[in-house]
Parts: sequence; C-alpha cells; structure tokens
Amino acid sequence: MSLDALDLLKRLIACPSVTPEAAGALDVLEAALSGIGFVVTRLRFEGDGSYPVDNLFAVRGTGGRRLLFAGHTDVVPPGDLANWTSDPFTPREADGMLYGRGAADMKSGVAAFVAAAAAIPADAGTVMLAITNDEEADAINGTAKLMAWAEAQQQHFDFALVGEPSSAALLGDSIKIGRRGSLSGLITVAGTQGHVAYPERANNPMPALARIVSALDSQIDTGTEHFPASNLEVTSIDVGNPTGNVIPAAGTIKFNIRYNDLWTPETLADWVRGRIATVDAKGATVTFNITGAPARSFLSPLSDDVAILGTVISDVTGRKPEFSTGGGTSDARFIAQHGPVVECGLVGPSMHKADEHISIADLNGLTEIYRAFMVRFFGEAA
Amino acid sequence: MSLDALDLLKRLIACPSVTPEAAGALDVLEAALSGIGFVVTRLRFEGDGSYPVDNLFAVRGTGGRRLLFAGHTDVVPPGDLANWTSDPFTPREADGMLYGRGAADMKSGVAAFVAAAAAIPADAGTVMLAITNDEEADAINGTAKLMAWAEAQQQHFDFALVGEPSSAALLGDSIKIGRRGSLSGLITVAGTQGHVAYPERANNPMPALARIVSALDSQIDTGTEHFPASNLEVTSIDVGNPTGNVIPAAGTIKFNIRYNDLWTPETLADWVRGRIATVDAKGATVTFNITGAPARSFLSPLSDDVAILGTVISDVTGRKPEFSTGGGTSDARFIAQHGPVVECGLVGPSMHKADEHISIADLNGLTEIYRAFMVRFFGEAA
Repeated sequence: MSLDALDLLKRLIACPSVTPEAAGALDVLEAALSGIGFVVTRLRFEGDGSYPVDNLFAVRGTGGRRLLFAGHTDVVPPGDLANWTSDPFTPREADGMLYGRGAADMKSGVAAFVAAAAAIPADAGTVMLAITNDEEADAINGTAKLMAWAEAQQQHFDFALVGEPSSAALLGDSIKIGRRGSLSGLITVAGTQGHVAYPERANNPMPALARIVSALDSQIDTGTEHFPASNLEVTSIDVGNPTGNVIPAAGTIKFNIRYNDLWTPETLADWVRGRIATVDAKGATVTFNITGAPARSFLSPLSDDVAILGTVISDVTGRKPEFSTGGGTSDARFIAQHGPVVECGLVGPSMHKADEHISIADLNGLTEIYRAFMVRFFGEAA
Repeated sequence: MSLDALDLLKRLIACPSVTPEAAGALDVLEAALSGIGFVVTRLRFEGDGSYPVDNLFAVRGTGGRRLLFAGHTDVVPPGDLANWTSDPFTPREADGMLYGRGAADMKSGVAAFVAAAAAIPADAGTVMLAITNDEEADAINGTAKLMAWAEAQQQHFDFALVGEPSSAALLGDSIKIGRRGSLSGLITVAGTQGHVAYPERANNPMPALARIVSALDSQIDTGTEHFPASNLEVTSIDVGNPTGNVIPAAGTIKFNIRYNDLWTPETLADWVRGRIATVDAKGATVTFNITGAPARSFLSPLSDDVAILGTVISDVTGRKPEFSTGGGTSDARFIAQHGPVVECGLVGPSMHKADEHISIADLNGLTEIYRAFMVRFFGEAA
C-alpha cells in the first residue's frame, strides 16, 4: 500500500476545520486510514462545561510493540483574510512550499505519519492513532477523554509520538521530550473597611497582601537536568477602590507558575499555601484557589526509543536533535499521564500566522523519519 | 445696637445657599453687618480649575486688639427631600429646636457671632469677619484666597475664631485647637511586559510594588502632645491585567496620610521618597506624585486667649472644654497659615443630615460665649 503525504495534507487543508468544527477532516482521515488497514472508531465527547468535539481512534495490528501517534486536525481561525496571499483553506504550492491553515500546526504531522504507516508492513506491530479536533481551544472534550477511553479499551502503548511542529528552524533540530506545567491561582486578602482618619476602627488588608506577594517572590527550586527552575509571576493585583479616604475591604493577587518535573499541581498548591503561611496576616482573611485547569508537567524517560528517534533524525536530516522541554503546553501533557511521549514534527514558526506554510521537502523528510523510526521501533518484524 | 441671633439665623437658612450659589445669604449678612457698623467688602474669586465663588470680608474698628471670625454661608445639598420633615430652606422651630439646612453647619455660628458683635461697643477693638460661600466643596476660591487678600490689605489678626460646630454632644464640651493634615499620593511602578513562560525577557514590577507597600507600612512618628501618631493607609493597588499568561507592565499604589503637627506636605513627601528609596526596585521605574491638594496640619499655641476662651465656656456652660485635634479637615487650616486659630461652635452630629437642627438655647449660649470672650479679649476698652 502506498499513500502520498502531500496529497493527504492537501485534502486535510481543504477542510476548514477551525476548532471545534471537523468540517470533513476526520472523514478524510478515516478514509485514508481504513484504506491502509486501520480499524477506525469515531468518538464524540461533550459536557464538562465545553462544546461537543469529534475525535478519532484508529488501530492496526494486535501483536508486537505498541506505538501511539497523537495529533489534531483542528486549526486556529485564519484571522484577517487580507493578510493571506490566497485562500487559507485552498492548499497552494509555490517554490517548494505548501501554504494553507494547518500546514504546520499540524495537519502535516498527521499526513506524514499516515503516509509512513502506509509504507511499513501492516503486521509489523500495533500502530494506533489518537486524533482530536480540539487541541487549539478548550481541550476538554479532546485528547484527555480520548486517552481515558483508550485506556478503558486496554489500548495501552509502549511509546507515543505527537506530531506537533517541534523543530525550531530546520527539520529535526529539536524534539520535545517534556513540557513545563502551568498553574494559575487567585489569592484574596480581606480585612475590614473603614475611614482613613480612623484606622483603629478598620483593618487594612493591603500590608498583608503586599507581604504575601513578597513571600511568593522566592525560589521554588533550582531546576532539573532537563528543565529550568520553576518560576512564579504575579500577573495582577487589584483592589479597585476609587475613594481616597476609604480603607479598602479586600484585594486580590493573581499569579501563574511555570514548573518543572519536580512538581504536580497538588504539591505546588501546597508550596503556595506554605508561602502564604509564612506571612502574619494581622487578622486579615486569606483565601487561595487554583483558577482554570492546571497543565501538568511531564518528562519522558530517555529510553532506547528516544535514542532510536534521535539516531533516525540524524540519519535523515544530518542533524542531532536537541532534547527540548521549552515552549508552552500541548496535548502531550494528557498522553504523558498514560505512558512515555515525545513531540517530533515540522518547523514551527509560521504556525497560527497568515500564510502558514511548510517545506514539501521537510514533509517528505518527516514521513521518512516516522517510517524509519517505526522500522527500528518494531524491530525484526518490520 | 441689638441684633437677635435666632432671627438672623432664620433669614440665613431661608437662602438656599448650596455651594457655590450664595442665593442671597451674603446679602442678608452684609445688611446685618452694615447695620452694626461694619465696613463690608464683597469679593468674587475664580479660576485655578474651580468655579467662581462669592466671599465677604467685614471690619469694624481700627484700634486695639484684632479678632477675626471666619466661617461660611454655603451648605451641603439637602439630599432626598422625602427624608426631611419639612422644607430644608424654610426654618422651623419645634420643641426648642431650630430645623433647616445649615442650622448646625454653620449659619448658626455666623449668626451667633454677628449678634455677639452687635452686643459689644463698636470701639472695643477691631473685629473682622471672613466669610466664604465655598467651604463644603472645592474650597479653592474661598477662605484661602480671602485670607491672602486680607493679608495684602494689612488686615492682620491677633486671634481667630472659626464658628464650625466643634461641640461633640453638649455645647462647649469641646473646642478644636488644631487639625491633622491630609496628604494623598500615587506611586506607579513600571517594568517590562512579557509572557509568563519567558520571564527572562520581561521585568515584572509586582515584587518591587509589593516591597514599596511594605516599606510604606512603617511608623512615621509616635505622636505629639496634642496629636496621635501620623498614619499612612494604602487605599488601593491596581494593575488591571486580565490576561493570566502576561507579565504586567505596571501597577499603581494609592495612599493617604493623616499627619500631625510635626510635618508639612513637603517634609512628608520627602519621608515617602525616603521609604521608596529603601527598596531595590530591580530595574523597575518608580514615580511618586502627590494627588489633589494636601491639607496642612496645624496646632494653635495654647495662649492666654485660648485659656480665656476655655474660662468663658466654663462660665457660660458649666463645662470645661476638651482641647481637641480630632476629626477631618476644615477651613481653619487656611487661617492657621496667618495666625492662631481655634474652632468653637455648636453641637455637630446633625450636620449634613436630613432634619439638621440646633438647640435654640445653645444658639443663645454660643452668642453669650462669643460676647463674653470678646469682652475679655479686648479688655479695658470693652
């Protein structure tokens, strides 16, 4: 069986699959996967305060080692069309590049992997794909639920690849072996309102609030082998008292922590509580709540599989990839709860911008990286 | 010459002189004063960012000691008329009380002093009145400019009485020999905005802001013989950053200081700058500005004149007055720049409220206090 990555990528880009509308992208994918021997399950998840999302799970084979590929078909909106040279949902080749929304992030990664899977024997081992159409927005009814569903189906994996554009400038210059976590919080410090001329009848919470901000401004850790030090930034302090002769009743502190693999959201929340506890609030009431859904940090073990991936990338591109943990967060954080995961894909800088594009040569190079990796990953059988 | 305080007070209350409209109140006063030998000058001041204001200066006599009485004919708005038993600008007697807007604050003080002045010999000494129609609002084109004008006219004074309602519960239980000052400030702490994931490319001003708040939370002084310790209250801290992954560019601290007779606005601003200078701002830019017009503190010398006033009050009321420096600010702060001043008037609690009122017996008592004080103040000649 043979399948051309560029052809599949063009068909995917032609689907205007802005989150959460799949707009035919999962149908295109299902047809391609069914054609090369995958059993495809379509899963619609909904609820938990977010919109319904279409997802796809595909599996080929039952024996041997088990490889998972994860990714997404949804794209961010094109923005002002005037900034695009041509229609963002009409794939366009020019000077060796392919233009279109999702070309980099990350329909190309999906197309390359499917083409690579088509190029290896169907009985080499077990290949699975977990594809969502909601990575760019809420991510509530997408990969997290898809992985929980797969685990309930006993669809475990030995190693996972995420096809996000992990390369910085040149194909293969970087893969992501982990990501920092992110936790946001809100601290409220409440005292007793009063008139500035009679402070003895009030309890101004501002000094306690300031001491808490100072207590949070301290070293969390000194970093780990693959991560920088965890870091807290206070993002806002707000009282909103317009009256110059009134002692305010309360104020709030908002903060975000980007943290390494030493911490979970739970242990980090305890750290915050510990810092707050160092402050004598002088009668003010201090409450702390996590806001939003924290993103967990993860670090994949530097296993033989990661080493093989690095070797394959060197063979194909002539570059030794940096093992990075930089950048923001991705759906890999959900996969990491179930097993080792690495992000390996195309060059990222044009993603989310007008005239998003990738090099067609890179697309073919990534297809070859995935193919050669699978050959080594599955061993003798491939 | 004889002049009835209650009659004059009723005629003043009948003028709806809500700041800054004199509404005939100064005409009533001019007629009364002219009738008892005063030379009256009407002065309209304007500009400096405020509305025009009518003021009145009156003087009788040229020799002997020089006594100034200061006050205002403007009143605060009546508010919701439904809360009043009867029209606020129609004086009403009931059960020994006189009701009407301005009955306590402070048309009664003005009426009592004019009646007292009518009751002493015109040649006893020099009596002056400085009356504004803008004490309750901006106070920009009122007493401050009136006092500067009087000084330019060589109209100095040996002692000044302000007729504000200084009594707490019973006539004569308290006079004010000084007032705390008030200074408000705004501190802006500016850094460099950025993404929370890349703090090395930004400079978060929040830690410096918090340390400045803590630096301001310190003892200014320990108080003086007649004043409590000066005190600073932070009234607001505001950043207003709605975006949880953005390091904010800047934040502001607002504060107010109520301060005693150890300080001027200028020395206190230096104290604030000194506290800010104790903080290492780590590259953030800190700017400090005084907001609004600071009110100066003042303390009148405990002179023989103050002692005489205390004795007269005891003689009339049977009470020994407390020499107080409590409460907010009054126009006495402007007069204190030119000479010794004491506030002595009726019972205050109903002022600014619906059904504002005073006891008619108290009005007559205050008239007698002013009269007896003048007799003692001017000595043999009276």
